[in-house]
Amino acid sequence: MQAYSSLFQRLNHAIQDQQDKLRELSPKEMYDPMDYIIGLGGKRIRPLMTLIGCDLFDENPDNAIQAALAVELFHNFSLIHDDILDNAPLRRGNITVHEKWSHGIALLSGDGMLVKAYDVLSKSKSNHIPDLLKIFTKTGLEVCEGQQMDMNFETTEIVSVADYIEMITKKTAVLLGCSLQMGAICANISVSSQHHLYEFGKHIGIAFQILDDVLDVYADDKKFGKQVGGDIISNKKTFLLLSALHSSNEFQKKKLEDLLMSKTVSNSDKVIQVKEIYDELKVKDLAILEANKHTQLAFEHLNELSANTEKLNNLKEFAHHLLNREV
Amino acid sequence: MQAYSSLFQRLNHAIQDQQDKLRELSPKEMYDPMDYIIGLGGKRIRPLMTLIGCDLFDENPDNAIQAALAVELFHNFSLIHDDILDNAPLRRGNITVHEKWSHGIALLSGDGMLVKAYDVLSKSKSNHIPDLLKIFTKTGLEVCEGQQMDMNFETTEIVSVADYIEMITKKTAVLLGCSLQMGAICANISVSSQHHLYEFGKHIGIAFQILDDVLDVYADDKKFGKQVGGDIISNKKTFLLLSALHSSNEFQKKKLEDLLMSKTVSNSDKVIQVKEIYDELKVKDLAILEANKHTQLAFEHLNELSANTEKLNNLKEFAHHLLNREV
Repeated sequence: MQAYSSLFQRLNHAIQDQQDKLRELSPKEMYDPMDYIIGLGGKRIRPLMTLIGCDLFDENPDNAIQAALAVELFHNFSLIHDDILDNAPLRRGNITVHEKWSHGIALLSGDGMLVKAYDVLSKSKSNHIPDLLKIFTKTGLEVCEGQQMDMNFETTEIVSVADYIEMITKKTAVLLGCSLQMGAICANISVSSQHHLYEFGKHIGIAFQILDDVLDVYADDKKFGKQVGGDIISNKKTFLLLSALHSSNEFQKKKLEDLLMSKTVSNSDKVIQVKEIYDELKVKDLAILEANKHTQLAFEHLNELSANTEKLNNLKEFAHHLLNREV
Repeated sequence: MQAYSSLFQRLNHAIQDQQDKLRELSPKEMYDPMDYIIGLGGKRIRPLMTLIGCDLFDENPDNAIQAALAVELFHNFSLIHDDILDNAPLRRGNITVHEKWSHGIALLSGDGMLVKAYDVLSKSKSNHIPDLLKIFTKTGLEVCEGQQMDMNFETTEIVSVADYIEMITKKTAVLLGCSLQMGAICANISVSSQHHLYEFGKHIGIAFQILDDVLDVYADDKKFGKQVGGDIISNKKTFLLLSALHSSNEFQKKKLEDLLMSKTVSNSDKVIQVKEIYDELKVKDLAILEANKHTQLAFEHLNELSANTEKLNNLKEFAHHLLNREV
């Protein structure tokens, strides 16, 4: 996104600076993993959104840089602890913190990183701090709740599509809304405009996550970074699976449940056969419809904002860019 | 402490109220452990100190109640995660969160509790929030650093007494200083007075922790809540052990190290023999001397404060009450 290249550069500079500071701190066992996970990269979408949320209202995005860093640190804290919970060996193609160091160090450096996020936030302008703290903390709790819901789903027999939407909203989408809103707070914007920007980010986040489920099954093998069908293999309760379970007839449901329980069907056969049922039930279309509904909602909120038209268009384009990964 | 019975009552009411609110929240897997660990009790010294820090300057302690709750929630978060790290089966005579639920739930509800502490803090008066956030977060980082140092000590061959003092300062003492200072912030007191109150709390905390090490070895079996000599049995690097290693001659040092390494000496013999070396080296006296030094420092800071004399005397008496457990 050409329009955001200068914001992105500003952000990367601040992240680099933050990493330099982390390297100076001790004990190193606590701070090195923070530097390590930030260094693994990622698209930096959340902190970029914070700068965008500020820049949108023609305020100097430097005023939102602490908030942006707080968002990125929080996101990375959640990755360290989620990787412990998921027993994940890899993160962004690299060894996870708990594997590289230990579970204890991953636990503690994650805790420290969460507090560090607040430390960075506390260096924002004093008059912004109360509002920043409220939305950041409300969102932090929701992200934890979403993660707990996701864990609960693994052992819950019947999960509704509505429960699923609530889970992804909390686990993923609200942090996008929060990131934008924090930028808007730093631009001294009205509560009502903050709200519209938050809702825009949240609904884009929901759409993004649903399309992510679609991508996991229908992506082009050659272009997809991970194994296509991974969610099917691991019986993950995605929008597609839950919609399929919900809309299937008795025969299809039985077949689907047998595939989920089977210990003899190979992974590749399982993917092929589950996909056949998905296709029969047109759950891909359902998912795209649901994602479009949220994209539509997001843009309605964006249209409520009084801001520079070109900047609003850039944000729309950015949202499309995020959502239109190849399916 | 009769003088603080009304503050204590106010605090207990607020904690009860907070527990009632936690019970209303979902997912329950995340919030029930928070309610559970708060319900295990404890002396509530930290949040009481926050109310004391406010009341000392004749401000309504209700203004500090959110800060007090934040401190108590933070402390309990650290207990949940420390118990995971220590693989502890019991906390205050009850089963620990990770044993009662699971490691995953303990990790996540601990995270949630840390964020919840900030949530409660964010409901303080807006004009106090920036300063509260700064000291609370600085302290939170130090507590994590202290915990990491403590973990590092387990595998570090040579730990100096100075390293040990730094570790207990961060792991335990600064939260006492922070608790008092947060109360003072809510009483709109000058930065210089806040500093003296913080230093008072910190040095009392250091003295308390050193005396705790003494108590572990020299307490009366019948009055001590846990096994006397537990630190000796587990080779914990306490003030006593580190002082003994530091001041011993070659013969004593060899004997001490042999006892630490021995897999054949019984626990009770190990306690008796290590204690003999401690007595030869008078490390109990050294510890009491060091604790007294910090108590003295604490009172010097207290004397710098302009506050109601009776209230200052109550606080001194409270500090003595904390420190004068029977050795």
